[in-house]
Amino acid sequence: MANWKNLDTLDAYKALAESGHRVDLKEVLAGEAGAERVKKYSVPMACGLTYNYASKQVDEEVLAKLSALAKESDLEGKFRELYNGAMINTGEKRLVLHHLTRGQLGDDVIADGTDKRAFYTGEQKKIAEFASKVHSGEICNAAGEKFTTVVQIGIGGSDLGPRAMYIALENWARANGKLRMEAKFISNVDPDDAVSVLETTDVAHTLFILVSKSGTTLETLTNEAFVKNALAASDLDPAKHMIAVTSETSPLAKNSGYLAAFFMDDYIGGRYSSTSAVGGAVLSLAFGPEVFDAFLSGAAEADKLAACSDPMSNAAMLDALIGVYERNILGYESTAVLPYAQALARFPAHLQQADMESNGKSVNRFGEPVNYKTGPILFGEPGTNGQHSFYQLLHQGKTVVPLQFIVFRENQTGTDVDIQGSTSQKKLEANVAAQIVAFACGKDDDNLNKHFDGGRPSSIIVGDMLTPEALGALLAHFENKIMFQGFLWNLNSFDQEGVQLGKVLAKKVLAHDTDGALAEYSRLLCI
Amino acid sequence: MANWKNLDTLDAYKALAESGHRVDLKEVLAGEAGAERVKKYSVPMACGLTYNYASKQVDEEVLAKLSALAKESDLEGKFRELYNGAMINTGEKRLVLHHLTRGQLGDDVIADGTDKRAFYTGEQKKIAEFASKVHSGEICNAAGEKFTTVVQIGIGGSDLGPRAMYIALENWARANGKLRMEAKFISNVDPDDAVSVLETTDVAHTLFILVSKSGTTLETLTNEAFVKNALAASDLDPAKHMIAVTSETSPLAKNSGYLAAFFMDDYIGGRYSSTSAVGGAVLSLAFGPEVFDAFLSGAAEADKLAACSDPMSNAAMLDALIGVYERNILGYESTAVLPYAQALARFPAHLQQADMESNGKSVNRFGEPVNYKTGPILFGEPGTNGQHSFYQLLHQGKTVVPLQFIVFRENQTGTDVDIQGSTSQKKLEANVAAQIVAFACGKDDDNLNKHFDGGRPSSIIVGDMLTPEALGALLAHFENKIMFQGFLWNLNSFDQEGVQLGKVLAKKVLAHDTDGALAEYSRLLCI
Repeated sequence: MANWKNLDTLDAYKALAESGHRVDLKEVLAGEAGAERVKKYSVPMACGLTYNYASKQVDEEVLAKLSALAKESDLEGKFRELYNGAMINTGEKRLVLHHLTRGQLGDDVIADGTDKRAFYTGEQKKIAEFASKVHSGEICNAAGEKFTTVVQIGIGGSDLGPRAMYIALENWARANGKLRMEAKFISNVDPDDAVSVLETTDVAHTLFILVSKSGTTLETLTNEAFVKNALAASDLDPAKHMIAVTSETSPLAKNSGYLAAFFMDDYIGGRYSSTSAVGGAVLSLAFGPEVFDAFLSGAAEADKLAACSDPMSNAAMLDALIGVYERNILGYESTAVLPYAQALARFPAHLQQADMESNGKSVNRFGEPVNYKTGPILFGEPGTNGQHSFYQLLHQGKTVVPLQFIVFRENQTGTDVDIQGSTSQKKLEANVAAQIVAFACGKDDDNLNKHFDGGRPSSIIVGDMLTPEALGALLAHFENKIMFQGFLWNLNSFDQEGVQLGKVLAKKVLAHDTDGALAEYSRLLCI
Repeated sequence: MANWKNLDTLDAYKALAESGHRVDLKEVLAGEAGAERVKKYSVPMACGLTYNYASKQVDEEVLAKLSALAKESDLEGKFRELYNGAMINTGEKRLVLHHLTRGQLGDDVIADGTDKRAFYTGEQKKIAEFASKVHSGEICNAAGEKFTTVVQIGIGGSDLGPRAMYIALENWARANGKLRMEAKFISNVDPDDAVSVLETTDVAHTLFILVSKSGTTLETLTNEAFVKNALAASDLDPAKHMIAVTSETSPLAKNSGYLAAFFMDDYIGGRYSSTSAVGGAVLSLAFGPEVFDAFLSGAAEADKLAACSDPMSNAAMLDALIGVYERNILGYESTAVLPYAQALARFPAHLQQADMESNGKSVNRFGEPVNYKTGPILFGEPGTNGQHSFYQLLHQGKTVVPLQFIVFRENQTGTDVDIQGSTSQKKLEANVAAQIVAFACGKDDDNLNKHFDGGRPSSIIVGDMLTPEALGALLAHFENKIMFQGFLWNLNSFDQEGVQLGKVLAKKVLAHDTDGALAEYSRLLCI
C-alpha cells in the first residue's frame, strides 16, 4: 500500500523548497553548451513522439531533486495500485480504470463480479460490429438509406474529449479515405446550440448518440428532446435514429427508445472517457473501428512508458514533476498549451477540463485542507494564431506563464505550397522553434518597449505526424501527467465535488425556491 | 493635455493600497440587504444591456476610492484626447481611431489630409454597395451564378474578431432571414487549415477576402496561395473571386488581381478592427450591410456612455476600475469570461487577444518599467459547458479567478423545448444565477471535500437578446474597458512589440541562419 502523504511533508520537497538554486535559461541555453542541452534534455515518448524540456528551468541539480521526489512520493507504486484496481477515487469510493479501456498493465481487475478489461473490450467489440453494420448499410434508416452523419449529445467529458479527438483526426481521415461519417456535437443547454446543429443537419440520414452515464444529465436529456422533436417533425422514428452510451443500470439501458446501447461504468471518469465507449461510439462511426483501435494502441503504449519508475525515461512523470516545481517552487499560477497544429484546435479545451477538474482542489484525498498550491489555470489556442494575439503578454507581460508547445514534422493532408522559399509546414515549424528561443533567451534592447527579458520556460512535444496512434499517445501522456501531479499533491484527482453546488442552486431557482440575493438575481434575469 | 502618470504615483491608488478594508461577499450578499445590493449595484449599458457588479468585492468605501482614482487618473480626459485625435499610440506614433469607424464623439479628426470619419464611413458605403451587388447577382462568378459563400483569409485581429462576430450572429441571422452568405475563415499557417476549408467549400461560388493591412503578412499570403491553387485547379480566375481589405499604400491596393479593394489605415489596430472594413466586408457580405450598420450603431451607443466622467454610470470605466482593484490590490492574476450563450463561443478568444495583447506589458507609455502588475491572463468558454469542466477549480481550487458572466433573457432562434417544467433557456439563466451565488457565498460542509469557501467574485452583463446592436455594444464595452485599464496602468495599449522577436527568429530559422540552441531546435524539428 503506497504511502499517501502531503507534498510539504516529503523530505525531497523540503530540499527543493529550501534550495535557493535557480536556473537562468539565457545562461544555460547560450552557445554550444545550449545546443548540447537541447540534444540531451529529451525523453522518447510513445509512437515516435519526443518530450524536450531543454527550455525548462531545470538542470542536473534540480532534476536529481525531482527524481528523489518521485521516489519518495512513490509515483510508480501509486500508479501500480491504480492500474491493479485499488480504490483510488476515495471521495466517491471508486476504482479508476480508464487505462484498462486500452490495455492491461498489471493484474486482472475484477469488480462487481466482472473482469473489467473484458467488459471494456467487449463493449468496444460491440461498438465495432455496430459501426461496421452502419457503414455497410445493414443498419440504415427507415427508407433503407445509409446514415451519413453522427451527432453526439453529451456535456463535459462526454463532449470535450470526443469532440477534440474528432477534430484532431478529421483532416487526416479525409486525406486517407477514412472519413466514414461526418460527426457533430450538441452540448450546451442553450437552446440555440441544438437548434443550429439540427437546422444544418440532414436528420433523415443521421444517427444520434445520447451520452450520459447516469441517464439523467439534465442538459443532455433536454437536448435529446430537441432531437426527438426534429426527427418527429420529419416523420422519422427516434428509436431508429438514436443509440445510447450509458451505464448498465441507467434508464437508457435496455430501452426500446434506442437502436442500441453501449456501456461504460462508474470507474471511468467523464474527463477520462475518450478511450471508453464515450469516445468509442462516435469515433468508430466517424472513422471506422480500426482507426479507433489505432488510437487506443497509441494510448496503451504511452501508459506502458508511464509505468516506469525513472522520471528521466518517463515523460509523463517528468512533465508532472517539472509542473509541480513550477507551481510550488517557482510560483507560476497558470500554464498554456500551444499546439502548432490546427487539428488540435480543441485539444487545449479538453486538457483544460482534464487538468483543472482533476487537480483544481484544496483538500487532500483524506478531506484535509492542504497548505500548498495545487492545479494551475490551463488555457491555450493553436499557434501560429496565438502568436498574433495573446503572445504579447506571454513575452512582455508582468506574469510568467510556462508553455507547452506541440508540433509535428509533417502535416496531415500532405498538401502544401512553397512561398518565399519554404513550405507552409516548414514556416509553422520554424515559428515554434523561434518562439521557444525567444521566450527563453529574450533580447536586449535599449528601447525597453522592444526589450525581451527572456527566462520564460517552455517544453515541446514533437512528433512525425498527428496520426490516430500519435493522438492516443498524446492524450494518455497528459492524462498520466495529471494523475502523477494529483499523486504529488496528494489529491483525489477523480472526483469533482466543486461542480455540485451550482447544480443544487440552479434547481432551487427553477423551482422558485429562493430568497435574498439569489431571488434578486433571478428577477434581474426574469426567470 | 492629460497627465500621464504611473498608477502607483496616484494618491487615490495609494489610498487603496494602504487601506486594509476588504469586502466579504458572504456577508454583504446575505439576507434582504443582499437582495438590495443586487438591485442597487447595476449600471445601464447601451442597447438595453445591464452591468451588475453586486458580487464584486466592492462597497461604498471602495467605490468612492475607485471614483477618486478615475478622477485623478483623468480617464474621461484621456478618452477625450483619444477620440479627438491625439497621438495615443506613442510607440508607433499613431492616432487611435477605431471609435470613428462607428461614430464621432468629438472634434473632426483630420490626418494625412483626410477627414478620418468620412474616410471610414466612405469605405463602409463602398462595401455596402459591393455587398448589395453580390447579393443581387450583379457581381457574380464567370458562369453568371451568385456567390453563396465568403471566406476570410487573415490572422490575429483580421481573424479572431470578425470570426467571433460572425459566429455570434449566424443563428440570429438564420432565424431572421438575414443569412445571405455562409462565412468561413482561414488563418493558421498550418497548411491543413487552408486545405480543410477549401476541401469542404464550393470554390466556384465563393468570394475570398484577403485581409492584411500591410499586404505582406506572411501567413496570409501563404494562405492566399492555397486559395489561388484551388481556384486554378477548378479553372477559375482568382481575380474574379478575390477582394482585398488593406491599406491604401499596400501592394494589394489598386491591384488587378482583386475584384475590389476596401481600405483601413494605421490608426485601426488589428484587435480593434471588427468595426472597420476588416469586419465590415465579411459581415456585410454574410448578413447584409444593414445588419453591419446595426452592429456599428450598438458600438457607437456604448462609446457614448464610455465618454461620461462618472464611473457609477459608465459601465466600461467601472468594469476597468474594479479589474485594476482586483489585479493590483487583491492580487488576482487571471480572469475568466463565461458567456451563457453558445453564439458567443469564440468571443472569449477574441477578448483574449484584445486584452492580453493590449495590456500584457511591463513598460509604460514612455518606455519606462512599471513596478505593478498589468493585464491579467484572460480565458473562457461558454457556460453551461464550462460548469461540467474547469469550474471545479474556480469553485474549490487554490486560486481565485474573477469571473465575467454574460447572459441574455431570450435565445436567438426563438425555438425551445419544455422539460421537467422549464424551457432550456430558463435552465440556462437559472444556472448562471446559481453560479454567481455559489461562487460568492459558498456553502459550509463538515466534509471539507463538499465545502465551498465562497468569496469568489463575479460580475454579470445581462441583455434581452444577442442582436447585432447588443453585440456591438458588448464589443465596445470590452474595448473601452481595456482602454481605460491601459490608461490606469499608464501603458500604450495600442502597440504590440512583444510579437516581433519571434518573427525575426523564425525568418532566421527559415534562412538556416542559426547557431546554438536555435540550430539544435531546428534539427530536432527537421527544418
